[in-house]
Amino acid sequence: MSDTAAQQPVRLAHLDAHRYRDWVARGGATVIVPAGAFEQHGPHLPMGTDALLSTTIAEAVAGRTGAKVAEPFAYGYKSQQKSGGGDHLPGTISLDAAALIAQARCVLAGFLSQGVENLVVLNGHFENYQFLYEAADLALGDVRAAGGGGGAAPSVLLLSYWDFVSEETLAEVYPGGFPGWDIEHGGVLETSLMLHLRPELVDMERAVSHPAASLPRFDRLPVVAERTPETGCLSAPDGSDARKGELLFEQVTEDLATDLRRELGTS
Amino acid sequence: MSDTAAQQPVRLAHLDAHRYRDWVARGGATVIVPAGAFEQHGPHLPMGTDALLSTTIAEAVAGRTGAKVAEPFAYGYKSQQKSGGGDHLPGTISLDAAALIAQARCVLAGFLSQGVENLVVLNGHFENYQFLYEAADLALGDVRAAGGGGGAAPSVLLLSYWDFVSEETLAEVYPGGFPGWDIEHGGVLETSLMLHLRPELVDMERAVSHPAASLPRFDRLPVVAERTPETGCLSAPDGSDARKGELLFEQVTEDLATDLRRELGTS
Amino acid sequence: MSDTAAQQPVRLAHLDAHRYRDWVARGGATVIVPAGAFEQHGPHLPMGTDALLSTTIAEAVAGRTGAKVAEPFAYGYKSQQKSGGGDHLPGTISLDAAALIAQARCVLAGFLSQGVENLVVLNGHFENYQFLYEAADLALGDVRAAGGGGGAAPSVLLLSYWDFVSEETLAEVYPGGFPGWDIEHGGVLETSLMLHLRPELVDMERAVSHPAASLPRFDRLPVVAERTPETGCLSAPDGSDARKGELLFEQVTEDLATDLRRELGTS
Amino acid sequence: MSDTAAQQPVRLAHLDAHRYRDWVARGGATVIVPAGAFEQHGPHLPMGTDALLSTTIAEAVAGRTGAKVAEPFAYGYKSQQKSGGGDHLPGTISLDAAALIAQARCVLAGFLSQGVENLVVLNGHFENYQFLYEAADLALGDVRAAGGGGGAAPSVLLLSYWDFVSEETLAEVYPGGFPGWDIEHGGVLETSLMLHLRPELVDMERAVSHPAASLPRFDRLPVVAERTPETGCLSAPDGSDARKGELLFEQVTEDLATDLRRELGTS
Amino acid sequence: MSDTAAQQPVRLAHLDAHRYRDWVARGGATVIVPAGAFEQHGPHLPMGTDALLSTTIAEAVAGRTGAKVAEPFAYGYKSQQKSGGGDHLPGTISLDAAALIAQARCVLAGFLSQGVENLVVLNGHFENYQFLYEAADLALGDVRAAGGGGGAAPSVLLLSYWDFVSEETLAEVYPGGFPGWDIEHGGVLETSLMLHLRPELVDMERAVSHPAASLPRFDRLPVVAERTPETGCLSAPDGSDARKGELLFEQVTEDLATDLRRELGTS
Amino acid sequence: MSDTAAQQPVRLAHLDAHRYRDWVARGGATVIVPAGAFEQHGPHLPMGTDALLSTTIAEAVAGRTGAKVAEPFAYGYKSQQKSGGGDHLPGTISLDAAALIAQARCVLAGFLSQGVENLVVLNGHFENYQFLYEAADLALGDVRAAGGGGGAAPSVLLLSYWDFVSEETLAEVYPGGFPGWDIEHGGVLETSLMLHLRPELVDMERAVSHPAASLPRFDRLPVVAERTPETGCLSAPDGSDARKGELLFEQVTEDLATDLRRELGTS
Repeated sequence: MSDTAAQQPVRLAHLDAHRYRDWVARGGATVIVPAGAFEQHGPHLPMGTDALLSTTIAEAVAGRTGAKVAEPFAYGYKSQQKSGGGDHLPGTISLDAAALIAQARCVLAGFLSQGVENLVVLNGHFENYQFLYEAADLALGDVRAAGGGGGAAPSVLLLSYWDFVSEETLAEVYPGGFPGWDIEHGGVLETSLMLHLRPELVDMERAVSHPAASLPRFDRLPVVAERTPETGCLSAPDGSDARKGELLFEQVTEDLATDLRRELGTS
Repeated sequence: MSDTAAQQPVRLAHLDAHRYRDWVARGGATVIVPAGAFEQHGPHLPMGTDALLSTTIAEAVAGRTGAKVAEPFAYGYKSQQKSGGGDHLPGTISLDAAALIAQARCVLAGFLSQGVENLVVLNGHFENYQFLYEAADLALGDVRAAGGGGGAAPSVLLLSYWDFVSEETLAEVYPGGFPGWDIEHGGVLETSLMLHLRPELVDMERAVSHPAASLPRFDRLPVVAERTPETGCLSAPDGSDARKGELLFEQVTEDLATDLRRELGTS
Repeated sequence: MSDTAAQQPVRLAHLDAHRYRDWVARGGATVIVPAGAFEQHGPHLPMGTDALLSTTIAEAVAGRTGAKVAEPFAYGYKSQQKSGGGDHLPGTISLDAAALIAQARCVLAGFLSQGVENLVVLNGHFENYQFLYEAADLALGDVRAAGGGGGAAPSVLLLSYWDFVSEETLAEVYPGGFPGWDIEHGGVLETSLMLHLRPELVDMERAVSHPAASLPRFDRLPVVAERTPETGCLSAPDGSDARKGELLFEQVTEDLATDLRRELGTS
Repeated sequence: MSDTAAQQPVRLAHLDAHRYRDWVARGGATVIVPAGAFEQHGPHLPMGTDALLSTTIAEAVAGRTGAKVAEPFAYGYKSQQKSGGGDHLPGTISLDAAALIAQARCVLAGFLSQGVENLVVLNGHFENYQFLYEAADLALGDVRAAGGGGGAAPSVLLLSYWDFVSEETLAEVYPGGFPGWDIEHGGVLETSLMLHLRPELVDMERAVSHPAASLPRFDRLPVVAERTPETGCLSAPDGSDARKGELLFEQVTEDLATDLRRELGTS
Repeated sequence: MSDTAAQQPVRLAHLDAHRYRDWVARGGATVIVPAGAFEQHGPHLPMGTDALLSTTIAEAVAGRTGAKVAEPFAYGYKSQQKSGGGDHLPGTISLDAAALIAQARCVLAGFLSQGVENLVVLNGHFENYQFLYEAADLALGDVRAAGGGGGAAPSVLLLSYWDFVSEETLAEVYPGGFPGWDIEHGGVLETSLMLHLRPELVDMERAVSHPAASLPRFDRLPVVAERTPETGCLSAPDGSDARKGELLFEQVTEDLATDLRRELGTS
Repeated sequence: MSDTAAQQPVRLAHLDAHRYRDWVARGGATVIVPAGAFEQHGPHLPMGTDALLSTTIAEAVAGRTGAKVAEPFAYGYKSQQKSGGGDHLPGTISLDAAALIAQARCVLAGFLSQGVENLVVLNGHFENYQFLYEAADLALGDVRAAGGGGGAAPSVLLLSYWDFVSEETLAEVYPGGFPGWDIEHGGVLETSLMLHLRPELVDMERAVSHPAASLPRFDRLPVVAERTPETGCLSAPDGSDARKGELLFEQVTEDLATDLRRELGTS
């Protein structure tokens, strides 16, 4: 019995290597690598939030574009106080720069050297970005030095999913005005998305309302612990709901899929 | 509403950080870190087999011991021809030694520095073992240098789950005689376990019967590709079934749980 | 003849080690480490712009706060297309992540281990930030592991100087509306500052007017070279002048000095 | 308005990238990279002495040869007791081997990959030499692996400026006999050069006369602190003057320029 | 006077570089690199046992095959409790993973880049194996990236000498039944080989009889010291003698030589 | 039967761990670590010359001082043209900086952490020195961070044996005037020492007389191959003989032993 790509699992970990080999050999293969973190997200969201969100978004984008999804990076770079509350908080287990770069470099170079033509690193943890960029740059160098990759010139795209939230969506999700991505940690965006996608992992009864964190314009290390709200969230999840989550999810995955199709010339 | 540990998710990624903090503070916390790989497993098993198996076994052991399960290492050390068919095969995406050591070192040191008293690295990919050992040794040094960890002296246990298969189980699973762990890649053990635990990801119609690989007593690099059977399996999954998988799973998780309880003094 | 701190050079490289030793021994010593880059800045600005600006700002802040200024990091992290035009452009000589982290880690740990109580890393090259953060975190760990530092608990502050530009200043400098920091490379901010501080190094006759770069929401590697304007600037320096530079410089150094005094309790 | 190379700044950080690009494209471009240190030099010389001297000598050589000067390495390898008094002294902020190698490797590879044909690393801090050598060797390997560099085979020259002091100059500078380069730290050579080149940074009133350090034939770690004279200088600057500095400077730059012209075939 | 290869020393360290050059140029050169350790081996065997044995076996194999022997790796990876008693024991001086990999990588790449066609890494310390494998893999990548090696495609073979002990030999050496390689540390195999090859370094009067170690199925770190017998041996050397050593030595070297000839096509 | 230290082997690899443990426990233990290289030494000297000489000298010094000798570092840093002919020559197999530092760091930290109070790194390959220095510095930091070492404050001494050749010896060995250590590669010093210590490994019939190399004052990479004499020696071994070797050996070992006794307070 033969099957079509559409019937195959979108998650590469669920696919066998022979089908993978054939899929790559057909040309134009795109693999999305979700990047997350293992990080405290307050009392109402699970510690795996970032990887869960980036993986779920990756799967939806893959479903719309014919791409496939690699296993996520489940641990991310150190949580910073101004974007994630800080690396001192219990429940935040982080990689240092060298570890994250090394891991991502190997994985990206591995796919490229097997003929995958396009890699999309879909980031869901703010602090990861620059280290994933370094990994992508080094991986491309590795593949070149090894004489490598498939026929076509490979490319790596790197993005954080929130950069695809539109102005219109922002206006709906934050009717009182968007407070800025910097304090969106455990706040309305992540909580709403989780309520839509993984409601069984959210406990809104434990959510706490509190003013948004007011942090200085610099980073300070060691952190002054009391600058992070006690919950560990930088802004409260007040007003989060599954409908906002659905809106965010649908708009972002649609826009992301559209951009990928346009950029990579895939159908 | 308060909840008990038994009602909480066994997977830390599904737990919130406040409950995690309280759980650690009660003392004696044990976290199991599953280690797998992203590796071809022939035409009938998915590429994520090693991480799926080690994670599922970890969850079962955690359920029996009160431990909790961290996110698995989804990428492993380079597949070697004599134990995994070789790193040249499509569908095998590997970390080099430095990347695997760095990742595991950060994660292990992270849990230890937050007061987790016992870490169990539960390995499901043969080639990982020595690199995980190095990571554990370095992580303990890091925690010591940082003045570290919780009150009790922390410990790290490292094991591969197949080392807990008993002689009795082997006799039942391999009625014709056990061929050795070295060629158990994509063979009866892994296939039976997957048929028991994740049957929807196994396609026995695609399984191929062939003689076991006959490999020299040395490793050779670059590999002589034709020494690996075309399927990528080192032995055929002939005779695999879900009942054997259940037997393996139940015996191994029971023995593993027993050993952990005895070693760590947990209930 | 004794001299006072006020008579001493603000630049540590110009001070002798005996005076430095005495200054540190008096307690509360703050050292500002400017971070820049060696990077193309279009046809009208010199390649050393980032280090020149961060060093000059550091000296002014030091003059207002009693801090002293270490030698700048004259080479920075790889220029990214969306913030610096890209690392492929002639005249951009970059460090990779490991090199930048290692250098900054040694320098920061060095000052801390000699009893300098506060370090301020004053960044002038967007791409550096996360790697400097990692360096600061590792350096503090090094000092702790060595049993170290002076009497008081040391701190490291990290900032990019443009984060201290006020809304009022923005409104004056960009009367037509602020286009965003992301495309401020070789544009009005840097050009005006240089016209105020180092006019002999700016050649406005070579400046080119062109629309701001329009870049996608993702990073792509290898870069699509034509997405960067031919000048290498992401926005044109149209409307730059020394008066705007002076305004920017005075407001930023004053605010920065105020924040440092408040944060570090120095006079 | 076109300009000629002669009118352009000799310091690359002061040049714009377009002129740099055109200069490299004309072929035969030589870039001198000065290497220094941030190191105590006794009570009469500034901590930046090594970088100041190597940069100034580099500029003079560049002026005589048509080369250009990159930004100096302002931090150097750990000061050793037998050549710099020791790394334990306040005011000495050092890089470890990995950091210095990584930094220099990136910078050298960067220039070579852009088509600069000759690099001259002009060292002014004894302890740097072997690490700069390693960096040059690795950088050339990087460029080869990347398929690299300009048309001509690139070369890297590495030297310490004092190796170009002639016997005649030595005889004039040290009329009582040359005591050896090993104890020339903060002594007559460096002091005289600084008195000639940067007199405003030298304070001869603070200079102390003392016997030259008498150090064993081995290095010992941790250092026996009292083996270094209290000043931090290994020999006293007695008899230093600007005239000797001028003699040293003129002879060394002339000989260095002559050697470079002969070796590199530049005019 | 010309000499023949047979008259030349088998140990490369005893050969001059000109003869080495000529030998390599004749084609088909095979170099054996012995890997050992500096490790406690109980009260009756010297700490250099592993390197002594692997080097002596390498010399014998070289004598039978025309190969030559490089200097051994005299320090090995950390001794693990289940195979070597543990790294905490006095007299065990170990390399960490990065150091062993780096050393072996350089040496292997060095020989390959000079045209040696076959490298055989002959391991005599259990814990080394995976790190030597990584080194071999990386070295081959280095040579490829450098455009390298001699005319023929180079190969690296990696083996531990005990994997060549035949069933027949085992039956003679362990008449009471083979207890398994895992507890063969300082036991009958190593002691008998040393009694045959280096009797002057064995002191059987100091040998202690004790039951074999009984170790759990997992590794634990930090080690529970009392699980290692007081001698440091995992099994007692009872019944060791030079005749068994000779049998082991002759059979292993003969089989190893046969396998190498067959695999490498050398005479 | 008890034995005395004097009856024990001076080479630690030949000693058992129990005797080693007792020796260290008596206090004041000094271990000498010889460092060599695997390097071409012309047509008349073996490639292992540097390690052979440093090890033999170490054994003699140990015999005079009660120290013991660890296994030598048999591979050294890259041969440089101005001191060893260059790393491009067949027969020279080198470590890069990271590998040599890592290896030496582990070995030195290992001995120190077991209570060895004094380490003497006895270098026999010019290019190694700075990297061994870095290793010693890092190893001491490791031991400190681990809370380390024995009771007394440990020390590491680092030296190259030729720095102990006296003026009187030089005058006898080089009656025509000493040409400088820089071109002593495969010349009179090494050849005479080998003729005294390992005459069976020297083939004076193959020695070639030629003028000393005349090398520029800079290092150039890639090397200009023809600047190294065809033999690979930087000066000819003309006039070498075993009597000079004996003189050198006796004087150097005596002076070295005297210095160590004085410095370390050992008998």
